[in-house]
Amino acid sequence: MAIITLTTDFGTADGYVGAMKGVIARLAGSFPVPVVVDLAHDIPPGDIAHAAWVVATATTEFPHGSIHVVVVDPGVGGARREVVVRARGRWYVGPDNGVFAYVAERGGDAYAIENERFRAERVSPTFHGRDVFAPTAAAIASGEDPTTAGRKVELVGRLAWGPRERDTGRVVHIDRFGNLISDLPEAEAGRAVDVAGQILPLVGTYEEAAPGQLLAYIGSAGTVEIAVRDGRADRRLTVARGAPIVPAQTDPARGPYR
Amino acid sequence: MAIITLTTDFGTADGYVGAMKGVIARLAGSFPVPVVVDLAHDIPPGDIAHAAWVVATATTEFPHGSIHVVVVDPGVGGARREVVVRARGRWYVGPDNGVFAYVAERGGDAYAIENERFRAERVSPTFHGRDVFAPTAAAIASGEDPTTAGRKVELVGRLAWGPRERDTGRVVHIDRFGNLISDLPEAEAGRAVDVAGQILPLVGTYEEAAPGQLLAYIGSAGTVEIAVRDGRADRRLTVARGAPIVPAQTDPARGPYR
Amino acid sequence: MAIITLTTDFGTADGYVGAMKGVIARLAGSFPVPVVVDLAHDIPPGDIAHAAWVVATATTEFPHGSIHVVVVDPGVGGARREVVVRARGRWYVGPDNGVFAYVAERGGDAYAIENERFRAERVSPTFHGRDVFAPTAAAIASGEDPTTAGRKVELVGRLAWGPRERDTGRVVHIDRFGNLISDLPEAEAGRAVDVAGQILPLVGTYEEAAPGQLLAYIGSAGTVEIAVRDGRADRRLTVARGAPIVPAQTDPARGPYR
Repeated sequence: MAIITLTTDFGTADGYVGAMKGVIARLAGSFPVPVVVDLAHDIPPGDIAHAAWVVATATTEFPHGSIHVVVVDPGVGGARREVVVRARGRWYVGPDNGVFAYVAERGGDAYAIENERFRAERVSPTFHGRDVFAPTAAAIASGEDPTTAGRKVELVGRLAWGPRERDTGRVVHIDRFGNLISDLPEAEAGRAVDVAGQILPLVGTYEEAAPGQLLAYIGSAGTVEIAVRDGRADRRLTVARGAPIVPAQTDPARGPYR
Repeated sequence: MAIITLTTDFGTADGYVGAMKGVIARLAGSFPVPVVVDLAHDIPPGDIAHAAWVVATATTEFPHGSIHVVVVDPGVGGARREVVVRARGRWYVGPDNGVFAYVAERGGDAYAIENERFRAERVSPTFHGRDVFAPTAAAIASGEDPTTAGRKVELVGRLAWGPRERDTGRVVHIDRFGNLISDLPEAEAGRAVDVAGQILPLVGTYEEAAPGQLLAYIGSAGTVEIAVRDGRADRRLTVARGAPIVPAQTDPARGPYR
Repeated sequence: MAIITLTTDFGTADGYVGAMKGVIARLAGSFPVPVVVDLAHDIPPGDIAHAAWVVATATTEFPHGSIHVVVVDPGVGGARREVVVRARGRWYVGPDNGVFAYVAERGGDAYAIENERFRAERVSPTFHGRDVFAPTAAAIASGEDPTTAGRKVELVGRLAWGPRERDTGRVVHIDRFGNLISDLPEAEAGRAVDVAGQILPLVGTYEEAAPGQLLAYIGSAGTVEIAVRDGRADRRLTVARGAPIVPAQTDPARGPYR
């Protein structure tokens, strides 16, 4: 049974997500019915980087063969291409505007196909989610070969902060709890990190810090995160996404937090 | 396999949507299991017109026979009727308070049935979503004949701005992106529209306007929409829902935007 | 077919809910596929009491044997236990921090098992939703016996206002509409209630009050609720959760509302 996930910035007050689900239900046939899964619909409007991180961290939990539609598409109807991306045994469908930056970067043998084939008969220039991406997912779920969508292409969508270099990380996501999530992996993090001029030793759990205290730890994505116990790190530290987080030497004489 | 969609103003912080899903899971039996689809739950509380537009534009993408439950029901427990509506081969379940105004208007041979039959044994006066509408949808999904719900009735629910007249449109919806969506169809729109004293020529895509500029175009519902590229039209133009959008003559001597 | 519901404070902008769904899809096998149901994801961050009420009122609508995962877990990675709770023929999975307080209290013969068995090979200290609770639900859905998770324990998670005493209620939940929901059951409510110094007679429907007027009635949970018709009770009465709502004598000489 095919699984299709949906990640959009459409919110849950309009009918856009509903229309996409309707198209999939209509096109994908009644047997086997694809399971349609809401991944996240409150991506901030037009926030490509936010979507890129959410998609990269959540979709790899799904089984091989699963299909992941991403519609955060401020340039819809314009020059950016529509693509199907293969990465880590999963299919990704959406615009080539950066939403697949992490997926492709981490995917090893990832490749992309320009989608010139799968679409509705009439395509609205402002709603490719309904008229291009949903039909593409439905086609793949129905057994169509995604590699017949078009020619192989290089993804050109990029995030503002570009690919990561070794031994350096960046704040790549700020989550609902105000946690600052970086792409600095555990293997390169050492025992402490420097973010916005603060040296923070890595701890194991939230409870190792006092309430209200800043802490750094290896988060659920396997990378360094910054939090405030029972608080919000994004209100304590003035850092935007893209800001560096780098390994630091702890200075025992000064104590763990300074 | 039956499909049931849910559109409510219950939000996603309370248990009301969950209770409705529980009732459907409990009543609709285990085979064939109906697929329950979240259409939209963040309809602004009590905003009947908002729900009416979302339902009309999203549900027609679903297959014939699909069942669409709408619970935006500020008069719950009062005098408004509970109805089952048939329109365009689909079933609609909810209160007769205007939420089905567009569905019925566009449905051609649409008809409504007062629902006097399908309901829980004990009905809370404040939660017909759980005790009337969810059981009704479950019954239809289980093969009960919706026309046995009661007698045929005329829908009395109306929106503040009434049915549309030819060659004139109204702002009927403002979406998450701040786009102003009208019910003026493409066939009557001509080459430019007049909204709030602004004459806007119709363009093809967002990218035909400069960032920050107002633009008009045929939106995904096949009607005129007003947007600001990389911005919000609802912050640029002071118009409420119900405001007129009418075809206009362009004046080439003054240029496309004035 | 197994049903798994998810209740979290993860919101719908991050990938956390998506990751949990991916784990369930991956672990629960393809036949029979469990149906995963979003119960509520916008529980205010860390608000255990809010989750406890939502879960208690919504999950009892689901069929016996359904599995309910609750991840509102500010102490994740710390000392609180992970538990599986059996109540009213349903399974509950989550932290023992109070989220199951109402479920256990109302469950009669409810019991809890410390979950020492079901979990991912590597468990992130900050995301037990993905690494402990989702795998546990998937295991139960796949036919594993929940009572093999570990030893029976007493739940220690409590809410600030403790268990209810007879003939007295507390405001236990404030919903999206600003309604104040109490745990004072219909059988003990009498004909009027006293809340924040206001004596309010119980009415049958919203329409029995004038627009803008405070009213008390038996809500959909079978307990007393306070609302303002076409308004918000939480803006009219300054009461926090935990505040008492008790039966009152009406004084006909003073009229129903004073």
